[in-house]
Amino acid sequence: MQSEWTLSGIASFLNGTWQGEADLKITGIREIHLAGPGDLTFVANPVYSKYLKTTKASAVIVSRDLQTDFPNLIRVEDPQEAMGKLIPVFLSDRGLQESDRGIHETALIHETAVIGKNVHIGPYSVIGPHCEIGDETTIMAHVTLYDHVIIGKKCTIHAGSVLGSDGFGYTFHKGVFRNIPQRGRVILHDEVEMGAHCTIDRGSLGDTVIGEGCKLDNHVHIAHNVKIGKHCAFAGMSGVAGSAVIGNYCVFGGRVSVNGHIHVADGTQVAAMSGVSKSTKPGEILSGYIARPIHDFRREQAWIRRLPEMGELLNRIKILLKLDKDS
Amino acid sequence: MQSEWTLSGIASFLNGTWQGEADLKITGIREIHLAGPGDLTFVANPVYSKYLKTTKASAVIVSRDLQTDFPNLIRVEDPQEAMGKLIPVFLSDRGLQESDRGIHETALIHETAVIGKNVHIGPYSVIGPHCEIGDETTIMAHVTLYDHVIIGKKCTIHAGSVLGSDGFGYTFHKGVFRNIPQRGRVILHDEVEMGAHCTIDRGSLGDTVIGEGCKLDNHVHIAHNVKIGKHCAFAGMSGVAGSAVIGNYCVFGGRVSVNGHIHVADGTQVAAMSGVSKSTKPGEILSGYIARPIHDFRREQAWIRRLPEMGELLNRIKILLKLDKDS
Amino acid sequence: MQSEWTLSGIASFLNGTWQGEADLKITGIREIHLAGPGDLTFVANPVYSKYLKTTKASAVIVSRDLQTDFPNLIRVEDPQEAMGKLIPVFLSDRGLQESDRGIHETALIHETAVIGKNVHIGPYSVIGPHCEIGDETTIMAHVTLYDHVIIGKKCTIHAGSVLGSDGFGYTFHKGVFRNIPQRGRVILHDEVEMGAHCTIDRGSLGDTVIGEGCKLDNHVHIAHNVKIGKHCAFAGMSGVAGSAVIGNYCVFGGRVSVNGHIHVADGTQVAAMSGVSKSTKPGEILSGYIARPIHDFRREQAWIRRLPEMGELLNRIKILLKLDKDS
Repeated sequence: MQSEWTLSGIASFLNGTWQGEADLKITGIREIHLAGPGDLTFVANPVYSKYLKTTKASAVIVSRDLQTDFPNLIRVEDPQEAMGKLIPVFLSDRGLQESDRGIHETALIHETAVIGKNVHIGPYSVIGPHCEIGDETTIMAHVTLYDHVIIGKKCTIHAGSVLGSDGFGYTFHKGVFRNIPQRGRVILHDEVEMGAHCTIDRGSLGDTVIGEGCKLDNHVHIAHNVKIGKHCAFAGMSGVAGSAVIGNYCVFGGRVSVNGHIHVADGTQVAAMSGVSKSTKPGEILSGYIARPIHDFRREQAWIRRLPEMGELLNRIKILLKLDKDS
Repeated sequence: MQSEWTLSGIASFLNGTWQGEADLKITGIREIHLAGPGDLTFVANPVYSKYLKTTKASAVIVSRDLQTDFPNLIRVEDPQEAMGKLIPVFLSDRGLQESDRGIHETALIHETAVIGKNVHIGPYSVIGPHCEIGDETTIMAHVTLYDHVIIGKKCTIHAGSVLGSDGFGYTFHKGVFRNIPQRGRVILHDEVEMGAHCTIDRGSLGDTVIGEGCKLDNHVHIAHNVKIGKHCAFAGMSGVAGSAVIGNYCVFGGRVSVNGHIHVADGTQVAAMSGVSKSTKPGEILSGYIARPIHDFRREQAWIRRLPEMGELLNRIKILLKLDKDS
Repeated sequence: MQSEWTLSGIASFLNGTWQGEADLKITGIREIHLAGPGDLTFVANPVYSKYLKTTKASAVIVSRDLQTDFPNLIRVEDPQEAMGKLIPVFLSDRGLQESDRGIHETALIHETAVIGKNVHIGPYSVIGPHCEIGDETTIMAHVTLYDHVIIGKKCTIHAGSVLGSDGFGYTFHKGVFRNIPQRGRVILHDEVEMGAHCTIDRGSLGDTVIGEGCKLDNHVHIAHNVKIGKHCAFAGMSGVAGSAVIGNYCVFGGRVSVNGHIHVADGTQVAAMSGVSKSTKPGEILSGYIARPIHDFRREQAWIRRLPEMGELLNRIKILLKLDKDS
């Protein structure tokens, strides 16, 4: 954090305008409902503008056109983007420091691995034979890459993730499971980001592929032979079973399960906790334990809630019509 | 294990009374349905008292008032508590030994981290910049603390857990996901215990907070900005999405999901596998894929089971009333 | 990979017959729908034989009796088994090499641990006090064994798995959770295979046991005191709560949850994402958020889908019969 930040100084840094007290000292940044004196906060989502009446923050970053009589403001085009610019500078000692980038002395890198420029590999990570890691990629601590894991440029892999472990492939033969050899690769295209404790299994024969710009939250499991297109997002604890094919721009909520061997079409969106059992159409929005179009799901849920009432009505009709179960 | 344990010796150690054979040698401790000759077992939950008729154990620890004609007994106020006292002494070579406590030579501790008294840090754990670890806290092997993780006193963190990794925060802009910088902290209050492979993400701006006395089982995921009160329990594989606020004394069964940005009130209890989609009232007991009051959930489940019968009845009525679908 | 493979050479290696061009050069192996010129592929499951008309592969391994006019074929008794034999030889630089087997210099093995013959222990793995590891067992990187973990012969444990961590056992007493000491063991019988990031908790008092030949996918959680029989399979992200007893030859789909203290009988099969809440009968096939016989589950699901239609019909009847809700 620089020695002193003021309202006007921050506005200038963000190419924004300010109103109120130019020399107001800003000593912290906090969420609007938790902020106190000295704190700067922001309203990126209009839903949170209600807090402008109650926040104890000293100043707020808002969009150019937001109407408010809050005294100390910084106005910018896009408050979310402004925060994205300000936070790393304001909280400059947080996160991985540029000066700490590099390959940690405890990282084990196989002699056949090929490592790009400005790659960061954190402590105790293990990079196996024939791995390739693209320029500017960041691998945090305790990551395991088995052999033949190919990672693109500007990727990030958080602590504890395991890439290239064997897929779950067995045949059942005379009362025992026999291993199907798993010898494929894992391929991550550029700008893939992956949270902590993800597992990406190697292909059995071909490759497990994650497309450009995909983002995976923590505890995401991608099974063998899965092919994922570009710019998909997988929230925490979601999982994809073997040989599923996923298109571009798909979004999966937390703890979503995708069945094996199906095709999830471009732009499919799946609500949290749903299970996608069969192939989808482009742009479908799905929800449910067994996922179906979200409109159908909601209608069914509403009817399920009315079931007790329906049952009682049915009973009255049965009595009225003198219908006996056994008649 | 000490050289020789007898029925009367154990009773004395537990401040209990004994009946039967004073010098009976106890060579093992086992669950009542699995125990054999030489074993001591116990009945803490009255449900298990039925096994008193069939157990092959040589002796049983029971409460002072339990009625049984089992020959060799130790009677104590609270059998569960007695076992809690006996086990670590009887099986004295099991678990982390006091003599092994300390900071393992392979643990990497950043020079800016502050470590309390009698802290244990296991092999290959990584403690990042500006972390603080309170007195008497135990961190097992392969744990990763990113920077600015603040841990209270008498906490336990099991192997492989990751604290302080980036939250899953992106904006979608012109066809790609852009990272929202994650620079907040993780704060664990005193006496938090956490199983293996938990992930606790750092706040985006403020802190992710876990209150005093909370217990987390294995594979629990707590997303960025979540605030959890005191003395909550999270069973295995449960997960909390970003910015949720959880009160005190809440209990979450295995694989429960909590939606982001909601408020779970004090004393809420959630059955295993449920998904809490909206804010709760104090003391609510919830269940269901989309969680609702457990009484409603059970009633709906019962009606769902009767659906085939209802459907057939409805069909009979339709025929009786000469109602045709298209009429 | 050997310098040159031909159709007839591979057929000979597999003890199969060939038809077509004996000297056809094979330069790769790929899935039938992804294969291109130079690739050998296979049809193990008749479902995939449809791709014989469109594949760009140069040659296909098929069973002896499959009817096809594809020009270049290798015929064997069991194509899946043939691939299992061919892949490790053809892709001979993939996976853990025999020459790399051994105990990595960074593996930490407690002086009281007993390690069998030809055991592989990968980098940064930690083997605690009184552990026993059977002959031919393979433990990959970053695995943590707490104390008293007993592993049989020919087992495989993938990266990041944690065995022997404390079970989740607490009593709630005067407003706080009190730890129940966890001092049991973990026992894996021979030929157990376990994916990445599994957690197997130690018994509280007795043992957590996984029977011979069981296979666990990634992210599987087995709680304290669970006893699992022989030759069971657990797909990714499945979990078993404390003290459950599971028989032989059970199969659990992805993300299945098994309740604590129940008995899952021999040969039970559970569909993905289901929750087994109560004990099962031998050979039952179950499905559902609260698992029930799969036939019942499917029937109920079909009725749920018809609920809107049923509700409308009921409404017509109500009007026809002049039934008012309050009457």
